[in-house]
This record gives sequence, structure tokens and C-alpha cells, in this order.
Amino acid sequence: MIGRLNHVAIAVRDIGAASQLYRNTLGADVSAPEALAEHGVTVVFITLPNTKIELLEPLGADSPIAKFLEKNPDGGIHHICYEVEDIGAARDQLTKSGARVLGSGEPKIGAHGKPVLFLHPKDFNGTLVELEQA
Amino acid sequence: MIGRLNHVAIAVRDIGAASQLYRNTLGADVSAPEALAEHGVTVVFITLPNTKIELLEPLGADSPIAKFLEKNPDGGIHHICYEVEDIGAARDQLTKSGARVLGSGEPKIGAHGKPVLFLHPKDFNGTLVELEQA
Repeated sequence: MIGRLNHVAIAVRDIGAASQLYRNTLGADVSAPEALAEHGVTVVFITLPNTKIELLEPLGADSPIAKFLEKNPDGGIHHICYEVEDIGAARDQLTKSGARVLGSGEPKIGAHGKPVLFLHPKDFNGTLVELEQA
Repeated sequence: MIGRLNHVAIAVRDIGAASQLYRNTLGADVSAPEALAEHGVTVVFITLPNTKIELLEPLGADSPIAKFLEKNPDGGIHHICYEVEDIGAARDQLTKSGARVLGSGEPKIGAHGKPVLFLHPKDFNGTLVELEQA
């Protein structure tokens, strides 16, 4: 079912400093920050030859990563995203096998404008897994 | 400096159960477990079209991931590994910029038989970063 690793998302407190670190210290291809108000994050894309790293900084009062940064004040890896061909079929197969999908279970439009689902970390080795219809 | 994302490593308590989850529930290409006594882990490789996920289960009394699993009893993402062309040059550039390399600072032979270094999570957004000479 899962295909490519679409991205690894890293939550950070200061996206300017984190961008500089990846650009200057690690010599990577780093985008300008983009505010995604409807997702409660400012995002920076780091383009590697085979996949992406996404840096996420909380934006607004209800940011979905605020609590994570309270628990992990230095930041940390927030989730990994696998691509799937058909998000509805993936959801049906997952729930049939007993894995929990977060929220209503209905795919939502994610930060890339494509349908996504998040899977319960307790069912996936303590790892928050996003599935994105590629 | 950094090139491909070589792998994402996920620490797990039960590598058999985690393998089944990735093979049966997520439909991925999952290897047989391999005991790497000198690295204190049993490892399973999940081959995605563009990169790898590595599942790590502690092996032996001094496993480097035992403490992580004490803090994260469900498991979790342990580190990410970026490829570099020249690990010595990477180390010199990193230490010059003030980033801390773990251990002696000398590259060691990692689980794939290639020279590796680990970078201090405090200097990289709370993320343990491995560099591997590709």
C-alpha cells in the first residue's frame, strides 16, 4: 500500500534559525518560509535528491504542533508521510485491520493541497504517520 | 553538503510485531530481521521506492536504543540519516560552524559497513542526525 516517503516533518521553535542551519551548516536546498494559516504552521521545504524535509513552526493560537513543542522544547521529528495511490482504499484497509485513523476518519486536504490522513501513533510504534494521496 | 536521505530509523520494542505491521497492514517490502551484535540492535529494512525505513530493536545489555525506549515506551523515530560524499570534510565543516559531533568526533563504521557520524540533537532541532559516507 505505502509508496514513496513523501517527507519527514521536523517541528522547530525558530524556523529562521533552523533554515539557516540546514542552508549554511548542512548545505541543503532550503525554501523561503510559507505561512499556512489554515494549517496553523509556517513551513519551510528542504529539497533532498530523493525526498523532502519539512520544518514546521507553530502559527497562531491553535497550532497542531504547539503541544509537541511544549513536550519537546528543542523541537524534534513530528511525523513521517508516506504516499498512497488511493487514500479511501488505504483508509478502508487500515480500519479493517484495526488501525486507528485520527479525527473523523475522512481524508482532509493537507498542506500540499492533496487528501491526507493521520494514523494513531499508538498503533504505529509511537510514530505519527501521515498518508498522502500522491 | 547533505545529499540523499539514506534512512529514517524507528526504535521498536517488538521487531516481529512491527515487521508484520509494515508488511501486512501498510503493505511494504520488509526484510527478515538481522542481528547486529556489535551495534546492539536487531534491524529490519523496509524498502520504499525512494528511501528506507529501518526498524531497530534493542539487542544485548548495552543497546544504544535501550534508554530511548525507556523514555518512549511505544517506540518512536530515533534518528534520520543523510548521505554525504566525504565524511571527514563534513565533520570539519560542522565542527568549524560550532555544531557538536557525538563521541570522539572520529567517524566509525556504521551498520551498513560505511563510515558514519552522529550529530548532537541539541544543535539540530532536537533531532538525532546520522551522516553516512555514501
